[in-house]
Amino acid sequence: MALNHTFRRVVALAGGVGGAKLAAGLAARLPHGALTIIGNTGDDFRHYGLHVSPDLDTVMYTLAGLAHPINGWGIADDTRRMLEMLARYGEDTWFGLGDLDLATNLLRTHWLAQGKPLSQITAHLCERLGVTARLLPMTDDSLATVVYTAEQGKLSFQEYFVRYRWQPTVTRLAYEGEETAQPAAGVLEALAQAEAIILCPSNPLLSIAPILAVRAIREALAARRVPCVAISPIIAGAALKGPTVKIMNELGLRADVAGVASYYDGLIDGFVVDEADREVALKQQTLITNIRMMTPTDRGRLAEDVLLWIGDLHQ
Amino acid sequence: MALNHTFRRVVALAGGVGGAKLAAGLAARLPHGALTIIGNTGDDFRHYGLHVSPDLDTVMYTLAGLAHPINGWGIADDTRRMLEMLARYGEDTWFGLGDLDLATNLLRTHWLAQGKPLSQITAHLCERLGVTARLLPMTDDSLATVVYTAEQGKLSFQEYFVRYRWQPTVTRLAYEGEETAQPAAGVLEALAQAEAIILCPSNPLLSIAPILAVRAIREALAARRVPCVAISPIIAGAALKGPTVKIMNELGLRADVAGVASYYDGLIDGFVVDEADREVALKQQTLITNIRMMTPTDRGRLAEDVLLWIGDLHQ
Repeated sequence: MALNHTFRRVVALAGGVGGAKLAAGLAARLPHGALTIIGNTGDDFRHYGLHVSPDLDTVMYTLAGLAHPINGWGIADDTRRMLEMLARYGEDTWFGLGDLDLATNLLRTHWLAQGKPLSQITAHLCERLGVTARLLPMTDDSLATVVYTAEQGKLSFQEYFVRYRWQPTVTRLAYEGEETAQPAAGVLEALAQAEAIILCPSNPLLSIAPILAVRAIREALAARRVPCVAISPIIAGAALKGPTVKIMNELGLRADVAGVASYYDGLIDGFVVDEADREVALKQQTLITNIRMMTPTDRGRLAEDVLLWIGDLHQ
Repeated sequence: MALNHTFRRVVALAGGVGGAKLAAGLAARLPHGALTIIGNTGDDFRHYGLHVSPDLDTVMYTLAGLAHPINGWGIADDTRRMLEMLARYGEDTWFGLGDLDLATNLLRTHWLAQGKPLSQITAHLCERLGVTARLLPMTDDSLATVVYTAEQGKLSFQEYFVRYRWQPTVTRLAYEGEETAQPAAGVLEALAQAEAIILCPSNPLLSIAPILAVRAIREALAARRVPCVAISPIIAGAALKGPTVKIMNELGLRADVAGVASYYDGLIDGFVVDEADREVALKQQTLITNIRMMTPTDRGRLAEDVLLWIGDLHQ
């Protein structure tokens, strides 16, 4: 199926698993080199001295065809022998680092220690895994999502998400470093040249908000002259994955498609929702389609639906 | 078989595989807590940002019963999945880091970065693996064996040993940092309290010399009032393992039992040689026994032979 409008420059903002799947669909449907993904690094943290970038790696592994087919994160057929030995040393192995995944983290940490910026390192890793889409961290600086909870007080993102399995009640989210973090090299250029901007079906508060917390990115989006659309991470009041609905409820936001559309109000020109939400009336132009991505075929189909629709918006 | 003389304090100087085997034999034969091993850290190096201590780990894994039964170094049944992935990233994987072994290196590096000294880290790792003998690095400072070669110029130890498989011709050895390196906490106390000191069957130039390059250790050995004996790393003109004979030849030293005895002249009171070398006349008192350690039983038997003999020397 040919696209009405062939985009040459598309930017997607993506968090982890859901965003990575749509990014893979977009990469498959767009011309070679057309897609730039701005990835969330608000989840990044140091673990045993390693610089771990969970969302960047999820996108990278998914685009490389290496992602674990069930989890969506990590590498397919990875093992956890290093972790087994860490446990033998009496360490708390709450964060799952696979042996293959370790190579990525070790290289990244080693190169960061040599003074290379994260964006350059990410480009290098992607290139070596044969990823042709361009993956940029939102920033080369530190900008960390922190979670204030009723039960545990302030938690780093990974403590909240992995150690406590997002069970504590969120009272507030903050993005530490947002005052000073600059966009990584290439981010503003990509946004300036984009013919369309897509907010992937990622958690608005945990994945998209940290990207928007970089002031210059937020300003570039506000100043855009091209369509910006979002794909809902919620279907019929339930999150496709993770704590989207739970956190929106805890923060007093309406936790459904209308709530997400409202959260993105002013930022997006169109919103893509699932057929299950066809009755919901939204302020934005709306594309109703099947937004579940269970297979690679689904990803490509959804990407194509979204691109065709933006092409119409665009004309 | 009971020992004539029960030692309560013995110090062994050990390098890698050969030294580790005798250390394990000594640990099995001596009373609990009697053995202190001073390990060589001249081989330590940074690899992908990890602080690798090959000789310390060989001793630790051997004492813990985890060592690879054929190689002698590394962990039995280890895998190399992280390395496979590093190779996929196009990296040169000349240094074999097993996935289980990575946990050791990651923990050590992480704790060093927190400011803990290597001696404390080594004690902690050993304790967690159930090692009851005390393993001390010779120094917590940097003291690196470097190898000057005819073909490749100056090489770091691991480049010489692993990358180039000890094939270049050695013209000179140096121990960088020897002017300033201090003994690790506990080393001088252990030597002062020792009732006997044993130089394990390790490479004199690559494993024992770096330990002796720490001035205060050399001086403590010179000032000892207890027997110091060495076990030959050579049998009938052939090294038990590694480049001992090759390097001694290249440096113009006599590369046999007499050459090693001569190298240790003034340092040792007795020398343990294999039955194959029973005809060699040495200046030191000599114990002739089977010094091959093919099995754990061999290690215990050799340790017992040596301890009995030192007991006689001692009386």
